[in-house]
Amino acid sequence: MKKIVKEIKLFFIGKSPECKKGTAIWKAELYEIIFESDTVKGKIFDIILLFFITLSTLIIMLESVPDISSKIGFWLYILDWWVTISFTVEYILRVSSAKKARKYSTSFYGIIDILSIIPTYLSIFFVQSHYLAIIRILRLLRIFRIFKMGTYIDESNSLLISLRKSKRKIFVFLYFIIITTLILGSLMYVIEGGQNRESFSSIPQSMYWAVVTLTTVGYGDVAPVTVLGKIIASGIMILGYSIISVPAGLLSAEYTRQKKNQLNCKKCNFCNTITNEADAIYCKQCGHNLNMPAKNNETNS
Amino acid sequence: MKKIVKEIKLFFIGKSPECKKGTAIWKAELYEIIFESDTVKGKIFDIILLFFITLSTLIIMLESVPDISSKIGFWLYILDWWVTISFTVEYILRVSSAKKARKYSTSFYGIIDILSIIPTYLSIFFVQSHYLAIIRILRLLRIFRIFKMGTYIDESNSLLISLRKSKRKIFVFLYFIIITTLILGSLMYVIEGGQNRESFSSIPQSMYWAVVTLTTVGYGDVAPVTVLGKIIASGIMILGYSIISVPAGLLSAEYTRQKKNQLNCKKCNFCNTITNEADAIYCKQCGHNLNMPAKNNETNS
Amino acid sequence: MKKIVKEIKLFFIGKSPECKKGTAIWKAELYEIIFESDTVKGKIFDIILLFFITLSTLIIMLESVPDISSKIGFWLYILDWWVTISFTVEYILRVSSAKKARKYSTSFYGIIDILSIIPTYLSIFFVQSHYLAIIRILRLLRIFRIFKMGTYIDESNSLLISLRKSKRKIFVFLYFIIITTLILGSLMYVIEGGQNRESFSSIPQSMYWAVVTLTTVGYGDVAPVTVLGKIIASGIMILGYSIISVPAGLLSAEYTRQKKNQLNCKKCNFCNTITNEADAIYCKQCGHNLNMPAKNNETNS
Amino acid sequence: MKKIVKEIKLFFIGKSPECKKGTAIWKAELYEIIFESDTVKGKIFDIILLFFITLSTLIIMLESVPDISSKIGFWLYILDWWVTISFTVEYILRVSSAKKARKYSTSFYGIIDILSIIPTYLSIFFVQSHYLAIIRILRLLRIFRIFKMGTYIDESNSLLISLRKSKRKIFVFLYFIIITTLILGSLMYVIEGGQNRESFSSIPQSMYWAVVTLTTVGYGDVAPVTVLGKIIASGIMILGYSIISVPAGLLSAEYTRQKKNQLNCKKCNFCNTITNEADAIYCKQCGHNLNMPAKNNETNS
Repeated sequence: MKKIVKEIKLFFIGKSPECKKGTAIWKAELYEIIFESDTVKGKIFDIILLFFITLSTLIIMLESVPDISSKIGFWLYILDWWVTISFTVEYILRVSSAKKARKYSTSFYGIIDILSIIPTYLSIFFVQSHYLAIIRILRLLRIFRIFKMGTYIDESNSLLISLRKSKRKIFVFLYFIIITTLILGSLMYVIEGGQNRESFSSIPQSMYWAVVTLTTVGYGDVAPVTVLGKIIASGIMILGYSIISVPAGLLSAEYTRQKKNQLNCKKCNFCNTITNEADAIYCKQCGHNLNMPAKNNETNS
Repeated sequence: MKKIVKEIKLFFIGKSPECKKGTAIWKAELYEIIFESDTVKGKIFDIILLFFITLSTLIIMLESVPDISSKIGFWLYILDWWVTISFTVEYILRVSSAKKARKYSTSFYGIIDILSIIPTYLSIFFVQSHYLAIIRILRLLRIFRIFKMGTYIDESNSLLISLRKSKRKIFVFLYFIIITTLILGSLMYVIEGGQNRESFSSIPQSMYWAVVTLTTVGYGDVAPVTVLGKIIASGIMILGYSIISVPAGLLSAEYTRQKKNQLNCKKCNFCNTITNEADAIYCKQCGHNLNMPAKNNETNS
Repeated sequence: MKKIVKEIKLFFIGKSPECKKGTAIWKAELYEIIFESDTVKGKIFDIILLFFITLSTLIIMLESVPDISSKIGFWLYILDWWVTISFTVEYILRVSSAKKARKYSTSFYGIIDILSIIPTYLSIFFVQSHYLAIIRILRLLRIFRIFKMGTYIDESNSLLISLRKSKRKIFVFLYFIIITTLILGSLMYVIEGGQNRESFSSIPQSMYWAVVTLTTVGYGDVAPVTVLGKIIASGIMILGYSIISVPAGLLSAEYTRQKKNQLNCKKCNFCNTITNEADAIYCKQCGHNLNMPAKNNETNS
Repeated sequence: MKKIVKEIKLFFIGKSPECKKGTAIWKAELYEIIFESDTVKGKIFDIILLFFITLSTLIIMLESVPDISSKIGFWLYILDWWVTISFTVEYILRVSSAKKARKYSTSFYGIIDILSIIPTYLSIFFVQSHYLAIIRILRLLRIFRIFKMGTYIDESNSLLISLRKSKRKIFVFLYFIIITTLILGSLMYVIEGGQNRESFSSIPQSMYWAVVTLTTVGYGDVAPVTVLGKIIASGIMILGYSIISVPAGLLSAEYTRQKKNQLNCKKCNFCNTITNEADAIYCKQCGHNLNMPAKNNETNS
């Protein structure tokens, strides 16, 4: 019992000179548990964290539903405090165990971690206002931590690299979409503005309609009524329908190319064939051993 | 006539010691007809089964239409009993002819087969309630049996394998969709919640709207009214529009790769490696010439 | 003048014994003009025909608009008769000049040609009824004749062949869509049927909704209102959104493969490399002339 | 100060004989600044122009919003005049510095440049009418100038070339869409026209609905109500859903092919053929070894 109290003390007092070495060991161990996920303890910590983040997300979601909020609002309030206190403890542990406490607390995740606990404490002093809810939702961003877990990192990394490499193509595409929206929206404002002023009340509103139509979403809250308007609308639809998978096509072309580069490049030192597969031992063109260096061989022959 | 009675008896009494051998032959023949589809009889059985499943599906569909149900409801009721009794007979035959009766009756199809006949019998004791209809619809799952018939198995298998292989990528994609929906839904709840409380009444409701918008379905039952809401909605639409064919792209890339492997493989006559590319001259594993026949070469060396 | 009368007579009397040879020449010339499009006259005929088909389509379209029909209905009526008589003359010319008149008149286009002129004649005897309009619309099918003209035949043929080759995959896909629609439609009928009976009034109606949702069309005339219904609807949307370009992907894979086969296959007679490009003269693997036969070379070396 | 006045004078008087040489230098310098974007001054000019075009676009957009127009309409009016005068000055500079003034003023951009300044001047004489707004929107076309700037030209050029090369395929696709729309629209007019006359009031209206449905936009302002109508509508949806990425697929196939050609070409040192594939050893045109350097070989032979 005493030992546990002492250990807890160690965390919070931490840097007291008489137990520096003990703290160092504890810090290293804590760091392993909290920031890494290779050890068993680290994995358990990650799963508990995942549970708390999911719980926190569910609380925010359920609190927003009037029916549920009026019934079990009090229990959600209790749960929310429990989660907030747990997050607070976790934040303190993170700061105290981080190799560079300042670097962590000013990093993206550090800021989100602190922002995810502040709103609940603020709600004591201020009445639960609408604007506070905006900050509370930032807590949801903690969910991105899960991205860093498990075995799905490689896949998301591949996708992100592809995204970054085809950035320029996607920019050109988005630029094209915006210009198209602007011109067609303005055109529709002029055409429909007379007869259908409520729906096409301004150019921004017409642009909103153009986006809704071009992306084939089609809410139907704004729809053309004039003959010319309908003809142009049909044109926008067919255009949107025709170019719908261009960005995804660009992206997957990049993704495929990247994967291929990772897998397929093994160069033969004799005939310079570069399309040998990754698992090949002998060159498919000249039959030489791919693992043998070129120079070594020249002396043989 | 007597013979037929005897044969029917054989099914239902089955394991009586004096006619064990006869039963065994009958069981084997029945098994061939019911569970396999290579013989003529097996094919006829499958076609009849297909007819009954289609009929059963049509009955459930038509019974649900008030106009039709009030007119020819009685005949549908009769037909339903006929189908149910046929399915019951089929189930008994399946159980008695299955090589391992217990294994069949606890298998996926075995459970569906029994669930597809129980509701009609239960409807004698209970008034046809709404909740019974839920179980009746399970009968529709029998339709998956047809998947196992015909010549379309290869194609669906190829697609299923592709699906399984790109499982991780699809998981990452779905995860991304859910997180996006959660964050954008919450954001829209905060933004639109003030002016448009009826449509964006809670975070789950806003998430539903985000899914409807991101997938470009766009019912229009929930639509943003504020300027900021419309700008964010436009962003979601363009995002959804841009990534629309990413999962299908991943899937078809996998599918193409798989097909290519099947077609392009060149087998080495020495080490039996089958993954050599179509344009390879030398085996990538053992370095032997791929165009040389195996036997001819052995005599040379 | 007399000559023209004679020539017209030749058409309509045609097979009178005294001018058989003259008719034969006329028939051959007419055949070339009407059925072929290589000669100048044939091209002019095709353009005139295209004009008449377009005019006929426009008449049918404009007659259906109440505002226009009440204003210029009489002129449309006159025009319609003019087009009909022109089509009648054309039909007579086609029958009389066709190499096998019976074969033409029972062919797909022959039947459409006769069906496109009958309704107008029938309208003399019967009052212009709604049901007659159904047959009149068949005239629009004549528009497919234009497919046979111009330089776009190759492209449409390539697409048609691709379509035919990927028939089985598309069938599996459609089958999957129908089964999914059936099961999800039934499920939604049970779930939404209680609270939202007007929208999800029957299983076929729910299936219609499932198709509208799965294909991301989303009219919004039928929309879920229960929580469970919305969750399942979200699932259907994400499913539909994910598989949206699978059929097109299969189709274009087939199309690409086909184009590649047409272009890329040139086999080297020495090293059996089959991936030499169509414009290659020397094998890219062994450097031998691709146009030289294998045997001839063996005698040389 | 005097110098500046002189310089400004130079522009406007320009071709006065006594300072012809000075003008020529000025013209060349101005040409570099206005028409080219390689120099620092040219880049600054482009950025200022981009700012003015964006400002002009924003003014037109904001003026169309009634709420904003009533509040800050006066300031927008002032800003609009400022932009117009700036554009006027720019236009005069362009005309005076252009190598061939007439060629510029009759070019696409020249006409847009003059059309973008005229409407504001006309608004002095005429009351700001609805029809004048149509011409004012032409000013938005100036935004295409930005396309010519920056580093995104290559990407848009690649896309444009792909678009031009797959023109025929896209034409066939559009033709197919129009014919399908025409036939299915007419069919739906006949089927739905009886019960649902308001929605399917004419064939053009039905065609509009068919486009809305086929492109999966689905506004919901026009929706089928009859059973047969719903079945056909489901068919159209599945068709539209199935062919949705065909045009984009054709386009990206072309784009990929083009990029591949740029990357994969291996140049032959003898005959300078540049279309040899990446894995080729011997030139497909002349049969020489591709890996051998040109000079080294000449000495051998």
